[in-house]
Parts: sequence; structure tokens; C-alpha cells
Amino acid sequence: MTTLTNDTFIRTLLRQPVDRTPVWMMRQAGRYLPEYRHIREQAGSFMALCTNPELACEVTLQPLRRFAFDAAILFSDILTIPDAMGLGLYFTEGEGPKFKHPLQTAADIEKLPQPDPAVELRYVIDTVSLIRKNLQGSVPLIGFSGSPWTLATYMVEGGSSKNFQKVKGLMYGQPQLMHLLLDKLARAVADYLNAQIMAGAQAVMLFDTWGGLLTTEDYSDFSLRYAKQVRALLKTDYQGQRIPCILFTKGGGQWLENMADAGYDALGLDWQTDIRQARHRVGDKVALQGNLDPVALYASPEVIGEKVKSILHHYGTGSGHVFNLGHGILPDINPEHVKAMVDAVHQYSPDYHHPLA
Amino acid sequence: MTTLTNDTFIRTLLRQPVDRTPVWMMRQAGRYLPEYRHIREQAGSFMALCTNPELACEVTLQPLRRFAFDAAILFSDILTIPDAMGLGLYFTEGEGPKFKHPLQTAADIEKLPQPDPAVELRYVIDTVSLIRKNLQGSVPLIGFSGSPWTLATYMVEGGSSKNFQKVKGLMYGQPQLMHLLLDKLARAVADYLNAQIMAGAQAVMLFDTWGGLLTTEDYSDFSLRYAKQVRALLKTDYQGQRIPCILFTKGGGQWLENMADAGYDALGLDWQTDIRQARHRVGDKVALQGNLDPVALYASPEVIGEKVKSILHHYGTGSGHVFNLGHGILPDINPEHVKAMVDAVHQYSPDYHHPLA
Repeated sequence: MTTLTNDTFIRTLLRQPVDRTPVWMMRQAGRYLPEYRHIREQAGSFMALCTNPELACEVTLQPLRRFAFDAAILFSDILTIPDAMGLGLYFTEGEGPKFKHPLQTAADIEKLPQPDPAVELRYVIDTVSLIRKNLQGSVPLIGFSGSPWTLATYMVEGGSSKNFQKVKGLMYGQPQLMHLLLDKLARAVADYLNAQIMAGAQAVMLFDTWGGLLTTEDYSDFSLRYAKQVRALLKTDYQGQRIPCILFTKGGGQWLENMADAGYDALGLDWQTDIRQARHRVGDKVALQGNLDPVALYASPEVIGEKVKSILHHYGTGSGHVFNLGHGILPDINPEHVKAMVDAVHQYSPDYHHPLA
Repeated sequence: MTTLTNDTFIRTLLRQPVDRTPVWMMRQAGRYLPEYRHIREQAGSFMALCTNPELACEVTLQPLRRFAFDAAILFSDILTIPDAMGLGLYFTEGEGPKFKHPLQTAADIEKLPQPDPAVELRYVIDTVSLIRKNLQGSVPLIGFSGSPWTLATYMVEGGSSKNFQKVKGLMYGQPQLMHLLLDKLARAVADYLNAQIMAGAQAVMLFDTWGGLLTTEDYSDFSLRYAKQVRALLKTDYQGQRIPCILFTKGGGQWLENMADAGYDALGLDWQTDIRQARHRVGDKVALQGNLDPVALYASPEVIGEKVKSILHHYGTGSGHVFNLGHGILPDINPEHVKAMVDAVHQYSPDYHHPLA
């Protein structure tokens, strides 16, 4: 049973028959849209926008007015949890996210509180409710969080990093302390995603932006292990609906077999991975989401159409493919080129789906 | 026949029996050494150091005086060829390499000259001769170049890039022009490496720093294809000696099977790839070089020893493994930690080699 007008995205994640390939786009609510930039300016700062449910809801809905996307995704940041733990998230122009109080000592980690999503992350939960209400069942709403490992990198480094020297230093030098931090984060992420689900998120996605910077062994021990813990703690059903769950590790193409065993319904693919080979490797364990190179959206609409066609062709026949970029859309892409991508998915994908029974 | 006192590196690349695993380090002549910083300051600029054979020879030899490395590598930059083609290479503090005259039009590409290594790259060839002479047959000398694709990224972008928008734009929008550029570069790279071989380089390595940013298909068509062309044009023997050739694509772990068919004797591995799985995947086609995470050298000497042991163990028994980092050493590593790595390779690796017949 579903109350969605368009449930193609959910059905695809569950590998149920559909009549075409669904499409959405990482960072679809974002700077490439002039209407987003307008609201962002109005809000004053990125965090002011994130923490204002009305404005965050508005920017979530903006791309759906322009493009026939098959899902909405909560407008928020991956670093809301560390902020709720007291690290003080802020953004500086051109330098990405930073924390006022990065984790520097064992005591910092030991005393980290478990945030109550209904309190410290109330603004996100309210935003989810508001978006869900406004969507009126048109398309499903995706909730999300950064993965424990990815959150830990920012919390220890104090922001973005080139070499991840501090967080890897902690991992190599004091692995037990690192595990303590990741366990705390896994529980906080699960609480947070469950709260999003109860507020209306119909699918959730875990963004492991920096798992790909680890060795194969460390990815398994310090990133995937905690993605599994999150998954085990998540609601798999809510109010009679299955809540599909997507795991995306940027740069994780070498580890798809292991990721496919982590309990997720689908894996996100970056653009480097060939989706045909990926499908062959994961078999019928998971659906796949991706994976057009975000830079391909600078190309002409004709070239974009060809690239879309190629990815659809490489995935092949049958359900289980959600079309997306391999990473977030870049801020200076022409919205007409997004339209070219969406149109191409609509035009070419029905050929790859058998008629519904 | 070889005139080398220590030919462990060469024998390993050719998968001939050795009594221990050889070790060297990408960027082993570099800023982590105080004696390098001294010479670099004396030279005035990075390019002044590269173009001065006496000084470039001196910094090449410095790490060999401190550590029991099994190979020397020419001190130079990967971007000497575009500079020799007239693009005007320069370095700005903290921003990496830049070109005064990046490629902007079809005409820029069409009129690119083929440099004569004996003329425009004379300073490199002289450096190779001088290093070879000074090594006195102690260990082999590695020559190198950037790969055609990697050179093209810098030449089109005008320097380092985050998203490679311009070069991918050229690739997507005008693929024939991109192929023209890559063909010119492949021939120039082969000429350059052959000149290094004739001047004394006893092995060569192709650095494909940015191949890993491509899709699987584009990697094959625009990077690996030209690495193959380079290989086909290279001298495989010189003065009765086999000249082994190493291909390193950072981020190329998903494509090892294809790389193993490109005609190279060995593949460089970044740290994300598990060397055990890599060996299994490439079988007996190539030797492997790598792959300690450069960030692991910040850890304690004890932890470094454990990581070295683990990589040796994962590669397993027999010849075909050159120990190295998975990328260049970082500039603020303590040289004592490099010693810990080299000592661990010496201590633990003999167990993995059968006695010589």
C-alpha cells in the first residue's frame, strides 16, 4: 500500500517492476537555481536557511517545480549532528564547513552527548514534516545524514581536509578511541534518521563522502562497520510502508561487494564506476543509484542525452536503477542542461522496463 | 647481465627471484628532508632547481644517503613536456603548477610543437646522465613523465583543477581534438622517456595522477589508450638491459585488469586498493608497486612497522612487489618515520622470498 501518486523511486529501490527509470539529483536544491540563490540571500547565511523550516521547505520544493524529478530530498547539511553535539558548525565563504570546537582530546570524545533529534535537531524534523505535508503525496521525500566516518572526519579535522591527517592519526594511534567516537555517531545518526522517518521521510540515504580515502581494510573497519550499525538500528518499516535505505560512498567503487552485504536496499555510485560492471558485481542484492559525471552537465544537451542513454544502456533491462549524478550538481550548471538530463531519462528509459503485469 | 650492485628493484619489476622486497618512495627527494629544503632555498625557485642538473642530481641522491632505498628517481616535475612545448610552466606558493599559456583554442592544439628532448629538455637529460654517473651502479635510476591524459588536464585547465571542467568539456564536446592533443602528447612522452633511457634511466614510470577522475569508459579511451601508445613507442631494452616500465593511475583501483593488459611490467597502486586483491586480479601479468597510505607515516614507528608488515603479508610470498607509498610523501613527515618504514621492509620482507637458487 502506498499513498504516493508517483512511487517509481520507492519501487525501484525495492527492485519492483516500474515502467521507467526514476531520476533525481544530489544537491538538486542548490545554487545552480536562481530561485534558490534568491532565498539563500534572503536567509542571510547557509545555516540560517537550514534552520528555518519554511525556507528549507521552499528550497526543497523549488527543483520539483522545474523538473520532473521522482523524489524530493530534504534540504539540510550533512553536519547537523556534530552541530547538535555542541561543536558549533559554521560556514566561511569558499572554505566549506568548519567547527568552532573540533574534537581534540580523548575527553572531548568521551563527553560527547547523544543529541535528542526532537530537541537539538528539532528544526530538521520540523522541516521534514513541512516538506512532506507540502508534497501532498506527489513524490517521496528522502531524508539523509552524513555517515559516522564522514562526520568523524569533520569533527576531528575541524572542517574539510586534504589529507585527513588528524582523523587518520586518531584512527592509527588510538583505534579504540576512534571506535568509541564512531559508535556514538552511529547511534546518533540512527536516532536522527529514525526521527526523520517518523516525521515523514519515505526513504533515507547515508552520505559517506570520505570513506573512499581509506584503505580497503580501514574502510571495512571504520566506515562500513558503522554504516551497518546505523542500518541495523533503523526502522525498516513505518506505518506499514517499507523505508528503503541508500548507502553512498564516494570513491567506494572497489568495495561494492562488501557494501552490498551491509543491509542497504541500494548503493549510490560515483561516476568512475561502470554501472554495468557494478550491477554484475552486486547481483540481485541491491538497487543502484547513479551515475552521470556532474561535469558532463556542462556539455551540450545533445552530449548529455548521449551520456544518459549510455548509462541506461549499461545498466540494462529491468528495475533497480535510480538515475542520478555521481556526485552533487555543481553550482554554475545551466538549469536547461538539467532539463536535458531529465528529459533523456524520460525519453529513453521506458525501453529498459518490461510492461507492468 | 647487469652492472648494478643492487638490482633487487629491477629484478622485482621483472618478477625474477629476489631475497627481499625492494623499497623506494614517491617524492623521496623532497621537502620532508632538511637538506632538500636547503638546496631548494639555494636554487631560489622550484623550476630553478629542476633546470640545474648539478642541484637536481644532488637532491636526487640525498635520500639515498639517509635511507637504504633500492632505487633513485630523477628529481624533476611531471610537467616538463608542456613547458618544453611553450606553455610556460611556473609555480606559485601554495597553488601548485600553472601555465602562462594554457591551451584555449583548436589552433593552440594544432600548432603544438613536438619538443626535441635533446634541445628543449636538455636539462633533464643532462640531469639523468649526471645522476647515473654519480650513482656508480649502486642502485637503478628511475626516469618518469606525466601521462598524456594528466599532462592534458594541466595544459587545458592552465594548472591544477578541482572538477576538470575545461578538459572534460573538450573531451565531451570535441573528442577528436582531444584525441589529437593526446596523440601529440603520447609521442612527446615516448620521445622524452626514450631520451631518459638513453641517458641512463634503468626503469621508467608513467604518472597518471588524474586518470582516476574519469569514468571507466573515458579512462579507457582517453587515458589508458595513450598510456598504451607510449608503451608501444618505448625502448624495452637498451644496451642489453631490459628497461622495466611502471604505470601508476591514482584512483585507478577499479581498472587494474585493463591496466595489466597495457604492456607495462608493473602497476603502481594507491593506498585504497588492497594489494592482496590486486595481486589476485592481475595474476602473473605484472608486478605491483605500493601501497602504504602516505598519512600512515605520521603514526608512531611501531604503527608504521605494523602497517608495513600487513602490506607485505597481504602481497604474500614470491617476487613482484616493490614496496612504496600509495602516493607521494607529505612535506612535513619526520624523516625518522621514513626510516621506520624502510627498516620494517628490510626486517620483515625476507620471510616472503624463497632462497635464491
